[in-house]
Amino acid sequence: MGAAKVSADHPGIDELFALLAYGEVAAFYRLTEEARMAPDLNGRINMALMAAAEMGHFELVSDALEQRGMHVQQAMAKYRSVLESYHAQTIPSTWEEALVKTYIGDALAADFYLEIAEGLPDEIADVVRGVLAETGHSQFVVEEIRAAVAASDQQRSRLALWARRLLGEAITQAQYVMAERDELVDLVLSGTNGLGQLTEFFEKVQRTHADRMAELGLA
Amino acid sequence: MGAAKVSADHPGIDELFALLAYGEVAAFYRLTEEARMAPDLNGRINMALMAAAEMGHFELVSDALEQRGMHVQQAMAKYRSVLESYHAQTIPSTWEEALVKTYIGDALAADFYLEIAEGLPDEIADVVRGVLAETGHSQFVVEEIRAAVAASDQQRSRLALWARRLLGEAITQAQYVMAERDELVDLVLSGTNGLGQLTEFFEKVQRTHADRMAELGLA
Repeated sequence: MGAAKVSADHPGIDELFALLAYGEVAAFYRLTEEARMAPDLNGRINMALMAAAEMGHFELVSDALEQRGMHVQQAMAKYRSVLESYHAQTIPSTWEEALVKTYIGDALAADFYLEIAEGLPDEIADVVRGVLAETGHSQFVVEEIRAAVAASDQQRSRLALWARRLLGEAITQAQYVMAERDELVDLVLSGTNGLGQLTEFFEKVQRTHADRMAELGLA
Repeated sequence: MGAAKVSADHPGIDELFALLAYGEVAAFYRLTEEARMAPDLNGRINMALMAAAEMGHFELVSDALEQRGMHVQQAMAKYRSVLESYHAQTIPSTWEEALVKTYIGDALAADFYLEIAEGLPDEIADVVRGVLAETGHSQFVVEEIRAAVAASDQQRSRLALWARRLLGEAITQAQYVMAERDELVDLVLSGTNGLGQLTEFFEKVQRTHADRMAELGLA
């Protein structure tokens, strides 16, 4: 975004990493919980592979936090409530909803974090990008959802509403985190040239969300 | 064991790999299920890391099955009932029982498979050893259990009984698999010089189990 990059020892970076770390563990347990709805072994294996990839990402950000002299679990613990709230507010009731949540939720998280990463020093941005790297298993979700919505208009409108709810809940929780954590707000504002850019930030997240809906056949 | 090595295209090898593959997926879901009993974030993270490692091993054996021209999920499916039975017969009722099950169960599986691997061609044995490689997280289990039994004699005798039950159930299920799958029996007998060695095989598993009990402070 062209802003001056923030310093690598900005305390908001510790907070960002801690949030990412808890996010990966929460995603792991959410995926394994939702895998119970899988109709077959293929679904169970794919959810397990995606969950395992989240822990690979956790290890990456956990190592980065340790290198910054942080106590990983202590730093993570304060993000428990916001992340558990997001999951508690978005419990899928069908296997297709679980798949859409996996896909949209991971992608929204990536949008938020990667946008923030742009204003960070390269070595910090690299950690964020590594944590959010594609796991290569999401093609399975796209195929299952496209097939499900091609077969039923009712399924399509139901899943489109569900995806909109996921977006709304993600934005609510993102704003909540920022309101609670001064270091994070300062980090985001420093990297985005202030509040004007912050509005643009949320608009950009919504545009990317629309592209993704089209990809899933939900537009 | 000095027996002539079996051929790399022995059909029992496909069966062995399929059994290993289902075993990893079953272990993944068992670990994540049992992690619900974890008293803290540290326990949840460690269980998730161990579960993720199981999926890394799954990918290894799944690739090996594919390279042998097998349909992975079809081959795995026939081992569902025996592995789910083992887990259904050994549901832990406390966090400490869950930890002992993780440690003893993984180790017993490794004993069985590595013993069989000795009679197999090198490239096959390498896959088996890769799948069963230590995940590096089990030290966490040893420390938690040693602390728990040092603090309470009642806990010690309770967990010692539990570990014996795990051994019994594992042997029962191993014998059941062999009775059901001719290709596997033939593989094991070819690699072990016949039935005399098979008895020795189970005796060896029990001796290794005793060493492990001592390591956990349960002897």
